[in-house]
Amino acid sequence: MSGTGTIYGVGLGPGDPDLMSVKAHRLVSNATDIAYFRKSGRRGRARTSVDGLLRADVHEFAMEYPVTTEIPLDDPAYAATLKAFYEDCVEKLLAMVRAGRNVVVLCEGDPFFYGSFMHLHSRLLGHCPVEVVPGITGMSACWTATGQPITYGDDVLCVLAGTLDEESLVARMREADALVVMKLGRNLPKVRRALERAGLAERAFYVAYGAMPQQQVMPLSQKETDDAPYFSMIIVHGQGRRP
Amino acid sequence: MSGTGTIYGVGLGPGDPDLMSVKAHRLVSNATDIAYFRKSGRRGRARTSVDGLLRADVHEFAMEYPVTTEIPLDDPAYAATLKAFYEDCVEKLLAMVRAGRNVVVLCEGDPFFYGSFMHLHSRLLGHCPVEVVPGITGMSACWTATGQPITYGDDVLCVLAGTLDEESLVARMREADALVVMKLGRNLPKVRRALERAGLAERAFYVAYGAMPQQQVMPLSQKETDDAPYFSMIIVHGQGRRP
Repeated sequence: MSGTGTIYGVGLGPGDPDLMSVKAHRLVSNATDIAYFRKSGRRGRARTSVDGLLRADVHEFAMEYPVTTEIPLDDPAYAATLKAFYEDCVEKLLAMVRAGRNVVVLCEGDPFFYGSFMHLHSRLLGHCPVEVVPGITGMSACWTATGQPITYGDDVLCVLAGTLDEESLVARMREADALVVMKLGRNLPKVRRALERAGLAERAFYVAYGAMPQQQVMPLSQKETDDAPYFSMIIVHGQGRRP
Repeated sequence: MSGTGTIYGVGLGPGDPDLMSVKAHRLVSNATDIAYFRKSGRRGRARTSVDGLLRADVHEFAMEYPVTTEIPLDDPAYAATLKAFYEDCVEKLLAMVRAGRNVVVLCEGDPFFYGSFMHLHSRLLGHCPVEVVPGITGMSACWTATGQPITYGDDVLCVLAGTLDEESLVARMREADALVVMKLGRNLPKVRRALERAGLAERAFYVAYGAMPQQQVMPLSQKETDDAPYFSMIIVHGQGRRP
């Protein structure tokens, strides 16, 4: 054991191990040290998705969120609590790499496309080698699940967070040819109203758990309830050039 | 040999075989029949990216584009020529599956995110089993190459085709938090002017051949020439919430 280890931010893709990249699969299978975020009291979706792939003697560092929905996003206490949490995680990861260990950080989807790894990444840069492995995004799995292409020709694709306010959602939706709305969860009623106002409700699909065993796909107009997991999305397909 | 075969539209990811999904790698390695688009007189990038993975006895069906840039996109002859070409390809693919063969269609990136497979897909549906395997998009490889996350928090991501006219580009750019401009090629001078007008030129990165051996990454302000390959993109990172 000599020298400094490397932190690998590894995109696991949408949740099906068969959709991990060859590189991610190899890094995870050979890892001596893994780290992953999870809600307190849960196993964690990233961790669960690599069940059966890990070495028996792997060291696990579960980074447990101190808050998720208890503090409102716009409360300064929210940012302060998360900041301290990320700094603590980085300190522990740096101790591991300084002891010469390579650490594979499990990231759902693609590490640089929304997600939490980026908050570690910005703090690790300059302190140790960091390598990022891209992954298939959750949104690719969701539009694949609808059985229709998301973009044709010169279609403009707009990716929105369901956490935006209704007016912002409507304005952006009106400009888009093809649309993905992520971070749905409790925002579904608001997103549904915005889609109706933008004239897109009839074309919208609801997809939950894309590429996972419990995958659900339906036209939004057929979804009667307003309950939606965080891992659900709205997909509106583009209608561009089709020779 | 009995019954009908299946057409697999397989996303190869951005071009590095190590970034193919485990499923794509297995389908390609075991394929008895592959098909892929290419320009006349070229080997084809999709085909080249699987060099060394294929069975020695694989059957290859190279679908050679009848036109690429000889006819303007808005000339009706362009659409008519491509339509006849896609219909001919589908006829040949259906003859293969009716003979009981499974055919793996090699698709760069993700099959349902821009790209040509969708023009086969819409014509194959209802005539034979079709399975689509998502892939890591070229844009994921490009933003990963910049070493910075593309989207934070509630950032809106806008994906534009460089083929749009300058006014449309500027309008969409002004609305975006994070931006990807694909299909750059000969459109670079126009895209550069649009970025300047939208106030984004200083934050823009130019990436060519993301995740390929000849990868190039630089701030757009440092790119002195206006030559850009088709497989190049502009990336403008979001600047959202970062606890």
